[in-house]
Amino acid sequence: MKPSIPKGTRDFGPTEVLKRRYIIDTIRKVYEEYGYQPLETPAMENLNTLMGKYGDEGDKLLFRVLNQGQKVKKADLTALEEGNLAKFSNSLAERGLRYDLTIPFARYVVMNQHQLTFPFKRYQIQPVWRGDRPQKGRYREFFQCDADVVGSNSLLNEAELVQVFNKVYSQLDISVTVRLNNRKVLAGIADVIGCEEKMMDITIAIDKLDKIGLEGVQKELSNRGLGDDEIKEVSNFLAIEGDIPTKLSQLENLLATSETGMKGVAELKTLFHYISQVAIQVDVELDVTLARGLNYYTGTIFEVVANDVKMGSISGGGRYDDLTGTFGLPGVSGVGISFGLDRVYDVMEELGKFETISINTTQAMFINFGGETEAFAFKCLQELRKAGVPAEIYPDNAKMKKQMKYANTKQIPFVIFTGSEEMETGMLGIKNMETGEQEKVAVNELVNYLA
Amino acid sequence: MKPSIPKGTRDFGPTEVLKRRYIIDTIRKVYEEYGYQPLETPAMENLNTLMGKYGDEGDKLLFRVLNQGQKVKKADLTALEEGNLAKFSNSLAERGLRYDLTIPFARYVVMNQHQLTFPFKRYQIQPVWRGDRPQKGRYREFFQCDADVVGSNSLLNEAELVQVFNKVYSQLDISVTVRLNNRKVLAGIADVIGCEEKMMDITIAIDKLDKIGLEGVQKELSNRGLGDDEIKEVSNFLAIEGDIPTKLSQLENLLATSETGMKGVAELKTLFHYISQVAIQVDVELDVTLARGLNYYTGTIFEVVANDVKMGSISGGGRYDDLTGTFGLPGVSGVGISFGLDRVYDVMEELGKFETISINTTQAMFINFGGETEAFAFKCLQELRKAGVPAEIYPDNAKMKKQMKYANTKQIPFVIFTGSEEMETGMLGIKNMETGEQEKVAVNELVNYLA
Repeated sequence: MKPSIPKGTRDFGPTEVLKRRYIIDTIRKVYEEYGYQPLETPAMENLNTLMGKYGDEGDKLLFRVLNQGQKVKKADLTALEEGNLAKFSNSLAERGLRYDLTIPFARYVVMNQHQLTFPFKRYQIQPVWRGDRPQKGRYREFFQCDADVVGSNSLLNEAELVQVFNKVYSQLDISVTVRLNNRKVLAGIADVIGCEEKMMDITIAIDKLDKIGLEGVQKELSNRGLGDDEIKEVSNFLAIEGDIPTKLSQLENLLATSETGMKGVAELKTLFHYISQVAIQVDVELDVTLARGLNYYTGTIFEVVANDVKMGSISGGGRYDDLTGTFGLPGVSGVGISFGLDRVYDVMEELGKFETISINTTQAMFINFGGETEAFAFKCLQELRKAGVPAEIYPDNAKMKKQMKYANTKQIPFVIFTGSEEMETGMLGIKNMETGEQEKVAVNELVNYLA
Repeated sequence: MKPSIPKGTRDFGPTEVLKRRYIIDTIRKVYEEYGYQPLETPAMENLNTLMGKYGDEGDKLLFRVLNQGQKVKKADLTALEEGNLAKFSNSLAERGLRYDLTIPFARYVVMNQHQLTFPFKRYQIQPVWRGDRPQKGRYREFFQCDADVVGSNSLLNEAELVQVFNKVYSQLDISVTVRLNNRKVLAGIADVIGCEEKMMDITIAIDKLDKIGLEGVQKELSNRGLGDDEIKEVSNFLAIEGDIPTKLSQLENLLATSETGMKGVAELKTLFHYISQVAIQVDVELDVTLARGLNYYTGTIFEVVANDVKMGSISGGGRYDDLTGTFGLPGVSGVGISFGLDRVYDVMEELGKFETISINTTQAMFINFGGETEAFAFKCLQELRKAGVPAEIYPDNAKMKKQMKYANTKQIPFVIFTGSEEMETGMLGIKNMETGEQEKVAVNELVNYLA
């Protein structure tokens, strides 16, 4: 039997784990600097927690965990006969794998509402699972890195999340643009053209601007039932340009008759004012065409793109008015962001940003010549360990070539020789694996030499 | 709808995550100091990778992931009718959740055998899932922290793993005993009493010594078909005592006629010699009754127990001759250990070892008085952030009581007041939340004051 792993999943070997950890640690550290606290939820959730939260498509893509033992007897065979495979599947499973980190967070907040102090700022960095068709950059198991604050309406939270983007991407040395918009502004457009009920249609069409261009959007709006005048007004809105104050004042003109729209503009004004008070290295833009798809955002929306790599958004987020209502706790507003670990990883790989990161932890390896020289090497090794220097001894008295290959593969910078001559003199041979240079160093000088 | 989580699973709030991380980071750092490199494998494995690897019980306890979409049409209804629920279940699932970290490691080694350099030292810290009946200390999702080296027969590896136990538990400040034995010694006993084929029976009986006492073991041996003379010989073996050299020489006498047994004794001698060459703070014992249950070990076996807390073994491990044979790569010997995160956590909790660990990351919080004082506080906050001091501003202009409660719950050590008076004078009020003392500090002195 030739072993394999499920489609869309991956093993991460040492190098990949260390690169991924570098990104995760950077994000985690910044989240904590901004007062976000860690939360971890189980991989399995009850299916009734997950179902109906991600649309029909999501219900389909959820991984269900088969019930165990006698419980599978409850299989709904009538549903199977009738071809109702969803119903049949649901009769076999009570649990599903986590599909995102937001719903488990909402579930946690509701379950612990009486113990938690609000505003509650949590971050969560865990894998999620989706039965999507695997393709380049899309996996069935992937990590999300979320931070959310719930129980606070203040736009200071949004400003701080922009700072988080700024700090993380500055530290990862990736040049990015943070795009901001507000869902109330999008609602305002529908409002002023008298198509409130078409807000979703308009949002979906606008969201495609990057991909299909202005004409494409106009065509889509027409398909979705908007008249020429209305399409023209939407187009005016999409044509807004200039610096941020200019854009904001144009928005104010266009949205003057919409209360919701004006509220959106006011929120953007406040947010940009906060942002102007702090040092930001990354580009921050007001992008009135930013829509962030079909999700539940109701206020500010964020999106981050890499400036030097062609790749969709690498981070996103927004404010939602009612995260926990579905679990029986209405009126809890929050705002959150998420980093797509795989995309950030790919961007860093493409920009060569990992080249300076050490994928090795072992600083020195002792060659094993067996017998009493092995015992001597083992003793010398303890000196390094006592000093906290990560070091190894090759465990077997194998051929030199094999031992050197091991050190090479692991990119161990120094190899130490402790043959019988070295044992007598107490002067060890040290080879710098990068330069090839070899020197003699006394045992008690070893730690200093390597430091 | 009142939300809940599946039986046997847990949410980990901020405090628990930070405590667990403290243990995990300690283990990880020591593993890396000893040259072990990280590996991560997917949560889902193909069922044929997992099935038949953990005994009948394991096959039952595996969590299966239901096939998606049309595939559930392949349900084996005949098997369901016949009451063959295992067969029915297997017709609905091609994937299962990781049950331990050893089989995925073996699978990884075989899949990557041509890229890997042996010996390959890897560690892996990830959750596993088992459908066991949940009870105190037993969960359906729990973390394992494994390290294994494959492709080396050297007992230096075993000695180093004892050092790993020593270093981890010293750093965690838990007093432990490391018990050592060798499976070949157990085989040797079966050998000398002429019951080679009863080795498993003898092992299983001996394994229960702690629980059922000598008489119980004798009764079990009798039930398992051993005669009185044989039981007497096993009892002699169990009666071995004294310091390690004494025990070893008694073993040599008892096992003199068994080649396998003598090989086991020789391995123990070598291992204890290596261990005697290094500084070990924890207790290390030769426990000839140690058997480590029904698993696949063939050489050295390890077990670690806490000296001051009643709790089963908190770490274990051993050497296996053929880890990867089941996946088509025979003859790869290895040795590995595992830390049970939950048990280590419980021991530390019981011993009060977490009390000295900071569960807080935020160093200071600015009270939010709204308006221009908020802007001033926000500006001052940036000074702390620039200096890398984790700090927050309460995001809303809420009642003082609410803001103080937030700081208290998060155990934030300092709260900073920036009202209009402080804004004018530039002297901020700082309250030490532990002592209750309040002082005035200039903005540019803030970082120093908190450091």
